[in-house]
Amino acid sequence: MRAIVISRSGGPEVLEIRGVPMPEPGHGEIRVRVRAFCLNRADLLQCRGLYPAPPGWPRDIPGLEYSGEVDAVGPGAAGISFGDRVMGIVGGGSYAEYLVTPAAHAVPVPGGMSFEDAAAIPEAFITAFDALDRLDVVAGEWVLVHAVGSGVGTAVVQLAKARAASCIGTSRTRGKLVRAQALGLDVGVDSAHDDFVAAVKQVTGQGTQCVVDLIGGAQFPKTLDAMARCGRLILVGLTAGQHVEMDLGVILRKRLRIEGTVLRGRSNDEKSVVIAAFAETILPLFSEGRLVPVVDDVFPFEEIRAAHERLASNATFGNVVVQV
Amino acid sequence: MRAIVISRSGGPEVLEIRGVPMPEPGHGEIRVRVRAFCLNRADLLQCRGLYPAPPGWPRDIPGLEYSGEVDAVGPGAAGISFGDRVMGIVGGGSYAEYLVTPAAHAVPVPGGMSFEDAAAIPEAFITAFDALDRLDVVAGEWVLVHAVGSGVGTAVVQLAKARAASCIGTSRTRGKLVRAQALGLDVGVDSAHDDFVAAVKQVTGQGTQCVVDLIGGAQFPKTLDAMARCGRLILVGLTAGQHVEMDLGVILRKRLRIEGTVLRGRSNDEKSVVIAAFAETILPLFSEGRLVPVVDDVFPFEEIRAAHERLASNATFGNVVVQV
Repeated sequence: MRAIVISRSGGPEVLEIRGVPMPEPGHGEIRVRVRAFCLNRADLLQCRGLYPAPPGWPRDIPGLEYSGEVDAVGPGAAGISFGDRVMGIVGGGSYAEYLVTPAAHAVPVPGGMSFEDAAAIPEAFITAFDALDRLDVVAGEWVLVHAVGSGVGTAVVQLAKARAASCIGTSRTRGKLVRAQALGLDVGVDSAHDDFVAAVKQVTGQGTQCVVDLIGGAQFPKTLDAMARCGRLILVGLTAGQHVEMDLGVILRKRLRIEGTVLRGRSNDEKSVVIAAFAETILPLFSEGRLVPVVDDVFPFEEIRAAHERLASNATFGNVVVQV
Repeated sequence: MRAIVISRSGGPEVLEIRGVPMPEPGHGEIRVRVRAFCLNRADLLQCRGLYPAPPGWPRDIPGLEYSGEVDAVGPGAAGISFGDRVMGIVGGGSYAEYLVTPAAHAVPVPGGMSFEDAAAIPEAFITAFDALDRLDVVAGEWVLVHAVGSGVGTAVVQLAKARAASCIGTSRTRGKLVRAQALGLDVGVDSAHDDFVAAVKQVTGQGTQCVVDLIGGAQFPKTLDAMARCGRLILVGLTAGQHVEMDLGVILRKRLRIEGTVLRGRSNDEKSVVIAAFAETILPLFSEGRLVPVVDDVFPFEEIRAAHERLASNATFGNVVVQV
């Protein structure tokens, strides 16, 4: 089969299409004929040698999610059949014509949805679903999301609205705020020009109850400043950097709760739990039209380098999809 | 009545005994004839002008807890009578012969216990109870507590054992570790001479599941290093300082949860909830002999300055009590 392989450490130029052995499904696993996959920022890091795949997943083939058709069913993989249209998250290896994954990690593609749209669902929406679930976001609360134009950001906006919460998003690009508002974003803050702490306090009064932080970095202390008493923050990404200087006193005085999360490093059993909850509570909302996958652009398999350049440009809104 | 008043900003020398007006209980309140009170580090900060009393509490009379007898019962204060032996936390004002407090914030002194011992219970044990409750500490988990010889530290050890958890404590004084072991501490680490991160990892294997951090400061990142995957930390104090430089990546990768807490700044209703839970679940354990108040030393009212010097010396084990 053909796969996109990280030939050495570097930028998009290190990605090469090669012939590699077809993977075989083991106990409880399925093989999927991949039809589309999305890029994630973790893929860029993995190309640079900064984010190796967890044990048990392909080391040199990146890719954290896919959509496609079941091509083979391993022993003990119940409730799934050859030809089923599925999508899901994987620990690596979705930049390929075929991949092997635990059957429990695959969920059905909503009826009538294209593989390209479906590929834009798993990482963004499972991450956002899990983040809002851990935050215990309830109706009427404010949720602040940085980098609202990212794949996860656009999912957070939609899922926050589905919980009847209100959403404030930041972006350094005004156009992304306008597009996020079409998805339900209540308030957009242009963080390149405006003070988001002042904006959040003006809108919320006492500060935001919840934060989904996809960027971390030097503005992390400002994010804490923007939070209400007993506010909760979930740290999902660190695209703005991981080193921070801060005052622990604000955590104490405001009784803040800060939690980190990452999907990729979880055990298969842990992933099965969150995926099952996602399939039960969130997946039906796509069929009902209450949630929509957000596709920035679609690239053919052979143009994977251009797709990576697109993601690295920071010009994207939503997810960059590649056809297989 | 006589009270100890902060005459100006400074050290123990600014404390003066003065005659002040007797307070009158309002709706739902009681007046208590204070018999003993404990010192807290917050009192030292308040003397220096760094930790003002919250609204509604005496501004110039410090003191966050007391034991004594009910002296007057205000209108609407149910279930409590003149002469009842009570103890509790207050937002300020316990360095005095009389104080006024919401009746719902007073709990009974365990039968047969002296006022001096009882005074050593409220802040230490309510804080520790609330911290372990927020951490959701369960049987078999490890709890790391810094400054294990402090009033709260000695309470954490006992309450962790009452939850059938195991406890690792740090102190810069070897003798405090020995005394904490007599209270149930499983492992003591001399943090003046030994690397507590290495010690915690050696004892626990994967790191500690829970941390009660009473000190914060520059070693906060080391504390995160000592934590297990999905570990939980509650930040209760900042005696080692509040400025920190840290790597947010560790919070993300290990999926840590960090929560700040403070009792004094909570609303009366919030305090009533935690105090009621404490009275129901923890108070009986004193009568059963499973928990003991830890008194470092007892000072007469007139020697309040010496008592403050004792607390500031860092030589204390447990709580410094003052008789009234």
